[in-house]
Amino acid sequence: MTQQHTRQQHDEIAHYLRTAIREGYFQPGDELPSEAELTRKFTSSRGPVRQAMSTLRTEGLISSGRGRRTVVLDNVPTQSFDDIISFSQWCHNADIVPGQRTQWVTRRPAEKSLAASLRIPDGDPVVSVFRLRLMDDVPTMVERLNYPLEVGRHVLAFDTDSGSIYQELIDQGVDISRTSRTIDAIGANDDDAALLEVPVGTPLLRVRRRAFTSAGELIESSDDRYLPWKASFTMNSTRGNPSSMALTSTHLGDI
Amino acid sequence: MTQQHTRQQHDEIAHYLRTAIREGYFQPGDELPSEAELTRKFTSSRGPVRQAMSTLRTEGLISSGRGRRTVVLDNVPTQSFDDIISFSQWCHNADIVPGQRTQWVTRRPAEKSLAASLRIPDGDPVVSVFRLRLMDDVPTMVERLNYPLEVGRHVLAFDTDSGSIYQELIDQGVDISRTSRTIDAIGANDDDAALLEVPVGTPLLRVRRRAFTSAGELIESSDDRYLPWKASFTMNSTRGNPSSMALTSTHLGDI
Repeated sequence: MTQQHTRQQHDEIAHYLRTAIREGYFQPGDELPSEAELTRKFTSSRGPVRQAMSTLRTEGLISSGRGRRTVVLDNVPTQSFDDIISFSQWCHNADIVPGQRTQWVTRRPAEKSLAASLRIPDGDPVVSVFRLRLMDDVPTMVERLNYPLEVGRHVLAFDTDSGSIYQELIDQGVDISRTSRTIDAIGANDDDAALLEVPVGTPLLRVRRRAFTSAGELIESSDDRYLPWKASFTMNSTRGNPSSMALTSTHLGDI
Repeated sequence: MTQQHTRQQHDEIAHYLRTAIREGYFQPGDELPSEAELTRKFTSSRGPVRQAMSTLRTEGLISSGRGRRTVVLDNVPTQSFDDIISFSQWCHNADIVPGQRTQWVTRRPAEKSLAASLRIPDGDPVVSVFRLRLMDDVPTMVERLNYPLEVGRHVLAFDTDSGSIYQELIDQGVDISRTSRTIDAIGANDDDAALLEVPVGTPLLRVRRRAFTSAGELIESSDDRYLPWKASFTMNSTRGNPSSMALTSTHLGDI
């Protein structure tokens, strides 16, 4: 019973500190309460307090200390593969209601540049979707999706105003295993400006994504443009750990 | 000796394939030559060929195959901590000559928002640097760096037209252990436009970075603005592996 009690107390202390950090009660750079303060606050012995601190260290929320004071670290929550690829999923996690207004869905022969980006022969059929995405009913992002017909036929059969195309593809058994993304900035064109209700030329955060099966077949080429005051990317890096994101110099040929 | 010879052959084949992929001779999605073709090309037995393929799989350059054809994957080279934080280092790796034209270096009392971003009291001294960065003599990025005086004194003593401030800080023994970055888009202001030689309002890729010591002390707050046709971010994600980069909804309070 004592063991059980102690384990609960360790969890309780960790939960308290984690919540206080997540809700901003302790800001990054802030010093955590001392061991002595925490033992008093929780009428605890030092064991559970130390165990709770160790848990938070493992979670990357607080500094290692090394005999110095323990401080809250700037922490970026990692995101799962689904969070990254699905606007709907991402909104749900942030307690935001995702929305979509489909502008059009077409099946058409791929013109040259689209065929190249999907690595299919010119003129092969592709399915393209043009949607405005909303956060809590506010225009946020313009989405251009393109699929080879084999995948796109699932999109043609789906009500694209009803929610996540990504989830529908997964439900239909499409193997989406890897994505490659390029992030840059671009001015809103006429279509973007009209949908996002901003002037033409407004700087947008652009994410171009290609998705692959586990065998390396390309099954999606997309272009998402976010209002930068609605969404941004954050990432942490630590010395000694290579980054999975690379800043890449752009070759003129790519423009 | 046979063992030695075989090991060299395996390395040779892996090196050939790796180079061919990196230089774009094999594009992502391309099928690799078959085992039989490679054994002929290298007058090799199957062992070294298979070993080379296994190495490339481990490096994430080619698909797992799973009995299907082996294809080249879209691959983003990971970047080291130094590559990410240092424009100079990043250029060197890309065979680009980095340049810098310092506009000013100042020591001044921190006004309110800068003090908050460095988590120091209002009016505490900060060292700020405003530089244009160049790639092969072409204006590419506008850099705004801010340091608390304890770190900034090294910058005051450094010729900021001579190269990497980051390298200088490392050489001076400053402990730069972690960074947190936020990536979005912003229109060029008057200063950006003049230095980058583009119209005011041109969309720029903005990277705001904060750097920390291993104890979690904030030692830099910076704002880099890239011409998006000169640089972009790329990243790969694989199902099952959480991403170290997160798309974050922006709170109005952060604007």
